[in-house]
Amino acid sequence: MEHRRGAERVRSDATTLPSPSVSGLIVQKYGGSSVATTDLIRNVARRLGRVRDSGTRVVGVVSAMGDTTDDLLAIARRVTPDPGDRELALLLSTGEVVTATLMTMALKSEGYDAIALTGFQAGIRTNPVHTKAQILDIDPTRIHRELDAGAIPIIAGYQGWTDDQDIAVLGRGGSDTTAVAVAIALGADQCEILKDVDGIYSADPRVVPKARKLDFISYEEILELARAGSQVLHPRAAELGETYGMRIVVRSSFHEAPGTTIVTGDAMPLEGRERVRAIAHDTDVARITIVSVPDRPGIAHGIFAPIEAASISVDVIVQNVSHQNVTDISFTVSRTDLARTLRIIEPVAHGMQAQAVTHSASLAKISIVGSGMVANPGYAARMFGALAEANCNIVSITTSEIRITCLIDESQVPIAARALHDAFQLDVV
Amino acid sequence: MEHRRGAERVRSDATTLPSPSVSGLIVQKYGGSSVATTDLIRNVARRLGRVRDSGTRVVGVVSAMGDTTDDLLAIARRVTPDPGDRELALLLSTGEVVTATLMTMALKSEGYDAIALTGFQAGIRTNPVHTKAQILDIDPTRIHRELDAGAIPIIAGYQGWTDDQDIAVLGRGGSDTTAVAVAIALGADQCEILKDVDGIYSADPRVVPKARKLDFISYEEILELARAGSQVLHPRAAELGETYGMRIVVRSSFHEAPGTTIVTGDAMPLEGRERVRAIAHDTDVARITIVSVPDRPGIAHGIFAPIEAASISVDVIVQNVSHQNVTDISFTVSRTDLARTLRIIEPVAHGMQAQAVTHSASLAKISIVGSGMVANPGYAARMFGALAEANCNIVSITTSEIRITCLIDESQVPIAARALHDAFQLDVV
Repeated sequence: MEHRRGAERVRSDATTLPSPSVSGLIVQKYGGSSVATTDLIRNVARRLGRVRDSGTRVVGVVSAMGDTTDDLLAIARRVTPDPGDRELALLLSTGEVVTATLMTMALKSEGYDAIALTGFQAGIRTNPVHTKAQILDIDPTRIHRELDAGAIPIIAGYQGWTDDQDIAVLGRGGSDTTAVAVAIALGADQCEILKDVDGIYSADPRVVPKARKLDFISYEEILELARAGSQVLHPRAAELGETYGMRIVVRSSFHEAPGTTIVTGDAMPLEGRERVRAIAHDTDVARITIVSVPDRPGIAHGIFAPIEAASISVDVIVQNVSHQNVTDISFTVSRTDLARTLRIIEPVAHGMQAQAVTHSASLAKISIVGSGMVANPGYAARMFGALAEANCNIVSITTSEIRITCLIDESQVPIAARALHDAFQLDVV
Repeated sequence: MEHRRGAERVRSDATTLPSPSVSGLIVQKYGGSSVATTDLIRNVARRLGRVRDSGTRVVGVVSAMGDTTDDLLAIARRVTPDPGDRELALLLSTGEVVTATLMTMALKSEGYDAIALTGFQAGIRTNPVHTKAQILDIDPTRIHRELDAGAIPIIAGYQGWTDDQDIAVLGRGGSDTTAVAVAIALGADQCEILKDVDGIYSADPRVVPKARKLDFISYEEILELARAGSQVLHPRAAELGETYGMRIVVRSSFHEAPGTTIVTGDAMPLEGRERVRAIAHDTDVARITIVSVPDRPGIAHGIFAPIEAASISVDVIVQNVSHQNVTDISFTVSRTDLARTLRIIEPVAHGMQAQAVTHSASLAKISIVGSGMVANPGYAARMFGALAEANCNIVSITTSEIRITCLIDESQVPIAARALHDAFQLDVV
């Protein structure tokens, strides 16, 4: 891949702690709430300008303004409950294009040379999964040309272009992925994700008042946090950053504090290694249960293959022990995918002689994440104990090497999060 | 040009009166007020579907929903008073893309195969005048492919793609031009412009209650009406229709009445030939006067060359008779271009030792248009007489072969329009 060499060079930097000043080239991504109004857009433009003034070349990647994406989704659903992925992607892609043009106008009005680029114009090629596309590669020719001409390129995040000349979008949080991929393709020194929060916290501060900002976090921890529902950084962005060794910094778009730097496990300061790093929760959870399905080989494949074919992400899967040759299979999907999943799964379940398909959209996931959990047993017991003490009923449990996730009732998320934050002493540095 | 043959074939049809039923292929363009809400979009989708059901292949061309274009302009101006054409074009182009995707979703939900195409995807290539571009040519390959596959292509109007891979927009009313150009490129049988009015009227019915719907109008009359400020059909669309002999019908998007057919002069029914066809008025007029500029050769060129270079359309130009070697030069531009024109012209006027530059944005144009005026004198006298009787002061007068335009005070437009409509008996068939 053409950009590989630059990325490799960056990799060696990323294993050391971040240097206080960065020269060369950085990519800054600004999320929806950082560009929600024209005043905020002008603020961001001035900040991009200050980076440029300091002698560092800078590329901006922007999300849609505020709730634009949700507004566009809502208008599509007013037309039809099932908008179709190709057109939905094209519709949603307009949100980021609007921000990119306004940001460019703001930069020009501040006296900077700038140019707005759509995903296509920025050379971002994706696979043809229209609403959950993956970036295949980036041809950085035009971005380089604009940088060489002295301009600040402002790239519409979240989108790319398929080989069929269709526009595809990357799914929620896709602008993070755009930013990291562009940073890699350009061989940038650093990719900064600027948000309406100061960095990555030990828990959602809106739910856990004692939550503490983390100075460092490892790629694998951020990946697990993302899988657990934390929206600090899109997992695909973290994966790309880890694979290509791109240093990623999550920081505030409103002030210049250093934020949270994502590092490889080796680079983590020692005192941070042996513990739970953070609590994550996710209320975008819907559970579907296929009741009393005959338990024979191929059942799971028969259920999940068509869901996967529809590009729906299945999360927690629980299959009960079989009684009298029938079993219940439960799994979770995001709430936005619930209706579509039911349409797919109901005929399948019927064909398997299942007794019924039930669903619930009032559950949530709560998780603890930390690299220290690999080598140290006992975290699960402490977690379940803390939840029991807080009177939270656990519906089901899943684990990875560095994460334990419990499915609980949505209404119990705040009390559970605070209980776990206390139990693992996450407010203590 | 590849589409020339098809267009030539259509031409021979267009000189006859329209046949009551059309088979083959038609292009239907729906304007902003016809697609202003999701309910209206669903209505239009059903109408497109009925055309398809009748066995006629159909292509939709859509404008931005309701006031979207104005809203986008307003948000750009909140960022900066001078947004820059390249980014403004990219920003505005998103409005039509949104409509095209929603219309496609609505068609699919009604069971029709459909596909939304951006200007680029539809193969529409323009020159690089970003906000007032002209279509250079259309490669109809993809539209044909989608039609052959049984789909209804829905094309985002008003936009195209430059050789620099930038998006350009065609200026106000550009979706009409898109529709006619697409119809020509496809060799369509007819191009229908569907609006929130029943067709072309003898005057604006909101101003002149007695205004009458016209069954036929000639291309040259519609061109003059457009130049006079009537917004029934974009002049570039009419020019294209005339050049390539594409039959254009202006009709209601809300019901199936036949509307107004635009014909060549020869095809106009005899009784319609010898008269004034319609009254047009235009309040989007700003007048700039360069006071006491030395009257020497090259003055006009010195003034208008930089304005033209900025792609600003200058309309009525009046140069007073020179006194003591100085003269006043007045001209009109659209009100949206006033600030930009003043910024260009003030240093120019200063360099020419002009005494001052003044401007007014409270004037309007009122015009009478009709092919019959070519051969028959006396229309001007009747027009001035009717305005005098209505106590309207005429600021300046310009004429073409089939149009007389008076600049009057904006507040006097309604009384002037009604007086002229009566004087030329336009309510009588």
